[in-house]
Amino acid sequence: MAEKKLGAQTVKFQNPPSIIATATVVGPVEGKGPLRNYFDLILGDFKFQEKSWEKAEKKMLKEAVEIAVKKSGIPSDKIEYFIAGDLLNQIISASFAARELGYPFLGIYGACSTVAEGLGIGAMLVDGGYADNIVMGTSSHFCSAERQYRFPLELGNQRPPTAQRTVTGAGAAVISTKNQNPRITYVTTGKVIDMGAVDPNDMGSAMAPAAVDTIVMHLEDSKRTPEDYDLIVTGDLASVGKDLAQKLMLQNGIDVSNKYTDCGLLIYSPEQDVHAGGSGCACAAVVTFGYIFKEMQKGRYNKILLVATGALMNSTVVQQGETIPCIAHAVALENL
Amino acid sequence: MAEKKLGAQTVKFQNPPSIIATATVVGPVEGKGPLRNYFDLILGDFKFQEKSWEKAEKKMLKEAVEIAVKKSGIPSDKIEYFIAGDLLNQIISASFAARELGYPFLGIYGACSTVAEGLGIGAMLVDGGYADNIVMGTSSHFCSAERQYRFPLELGNQRPPTAQRTVTGAGAAVISTKNQNPRITYVTTGKVIDMGAVDPNDMGSAMAPAAVDTIVMHLEDSKRTPEDYDLIVTGDLASVGKDLAQKLMLQNGIDVSNKYTDCGLLIYSPEQDVHAGGSGCACAAVVTFGYIFKEMQKGRYNKILLVATGALMNSTVVQQGETIPCIAHAVALENL
Repeated sequence: MAEKKLGAQTVKFQNPPSIIATATVVGPVEGKGPLRNYFDLILGDFKFQEKSWEKAEKKMLKEAVEIAVKKSGIPSDKIEYFIAGDLLNQIISASFAARELGYPFLGIYGACSTVAEGLGIGAMLVDGGYADNIVMGTSSHFCSAERQYRFPLELGNQRPPTAQRTVTGAGAAVISTKNQNPRITYVTTGKVIDMGAVDPNDMGSAMAPAAVDTIVMHLEDSKRTPEDYDLIVTGDLASVGKDLAQKLMLQNGIDVSNKYTDCGLLIYSPEQDVHAGGSGCACAAVVTFGYIFKEMQKGRYNKILLVATGALMNSTVVQQGETIPCIAHAVALENL
Repeated sequence: MAEKKLGAQTVKFQNPPSIIATATVVGPVEGKGPLRNYFDLILGDFKFQEKSWEKAEKKMLKEAVEIAVKKSGIPSDKIEYFIAGDLLNQIISASFAARELGYPFLGIYGACSTVAEGLGIGAMLVDGGYADNIVMGTSSHFCSAERQYRFPLELGNQRPPTAQRTVTGAGAAVISTKNQNPRITYVTTGKVIDMGAVDPNDMGSAMAPAAVDTIVMHLEDSKRTPEDYDLIVTGDLASVGKDLAQKLMLQNGIDVSNKYTDCGLLIYSPEQDVHAGGSGCACAAVVTFGYIFKEMQKGRYNKILLVATGALMNSTVVQQGETIPCIAHAVALENL
């Protein structure tokens, strides 16, 4: 069970934990996107039979966790931890879902990088022998996020072309000691990177340097190259941030052009009116747990580097003139 | 390095990680309280030479981490993770401190239970072999918390006697593989407990059942009794919550009356106009890392069960009529 800390930021698992089941719930817009056939549950509206968007978001997360646990075949009372976080103040979606689910709960916050932070902590707890089965989950909701971070939707504000659409959805995964593919083989925990971006309507550009920093550290620590992966997938940089990330990687001598994509681009089609693409905790979560996970099960992809990115600001610090600190965590998923 | 998962919620460490150094920064009110001689830095005002309370809170956290790392003697570049969280929306104190500190960062959220959640995750990562040295920290600030959770201070609202005062302060600890006392020997991760409390001016009563649930689980999992501890210390139940917790424990057949105290009672004296007592992430953190840690180093206490409690609500869910979900995590600290 011994593990090696390879470098400053990367853990390599000697007994890589498995992701034995995943589940995804998405909203109506994502349900019309190109990945619609990969999702478990597509909502017809934004309310999910609840009285508020916040309650709908919590219900999506709870549903995703319940579907994932059911698919895993692990009895509910053998799930030893629920690791979760979301975008809402005081991660209420995660905490309120935890109240209903009843699992011992570890709340985390990494903004849109939450899926990778949760997979990373979850994998360390499973590999370390502290649990045999953990469920992690995360969620976001276009309407609850807009009114918290930007403007009330009722205002009908225009958004610039650099703006991204917060994905309405939730994703969950069961991490287990079970001997099954795909595995979590490496985790690279990011540092907070802030290049001075101030525009809350261009998160892609703000987060791109953090993604690149973590990818560079991951490759250095693991002594791997982009050739070792079938695909490197960033979390939610979308069109503006992905282009910037690609340029910054080239400046670091890393050419990923033929195997690099971004969850914020995959989730919507260009015809959908979503500006630069998708964002939000659910963006990387539903793309990874829907599309990537299922294509890994089919064997189309065997080695994936997921690099989920997060912008760690709130509306108070924007008003106080702060720049936007960002982070990215990387998780290597492999069929062994 | 093998560890045993004893029961549903408790981990026992076979090689208990050490807390090799701690640091505490507190505000002017805490600096006049009975524990003032245990703190490293007492601020003269609420601003700490910054332009906003939020920036002051971030600076307190950063200072606490820097002092703790300095005391530990571990070179800054050997600190492998910074685990932190706080009460502010999107844990901005932790994220912005992480930006300046430069360590790989894991953001967590457990409201006022954050200190125990961070010690728990940190101990698992150190014991699991993923890091030799981790720094964890948390903070809260009376002024930033009041305006976010309740009312602008300028309004001069009266508060009922059940209300608690958010502790202005920050605490940090370095968790290490170094062979040194005190150790983290057990961690019990809590479930979310909600008994239907709705009053944001009586958090102690809301959180007491969560504290009791975790204490009962800890004793059951570890096959220990209160007699095994010199002191059981809850996080921030203060006078109203502590009385309720004591009654609930008696109902569970556990008599802790002669060795039970609460950080929210210890931090202020009855003469200070703080109503029921202290609360906030910093409450359990500065009492534990100031008073408890130093008294353990002196050998006055050798076995402590810290049970940090958190109320997992935000202002939106209060407006939407939700009850308050609460959590408590327990960490056993021992001189071996």
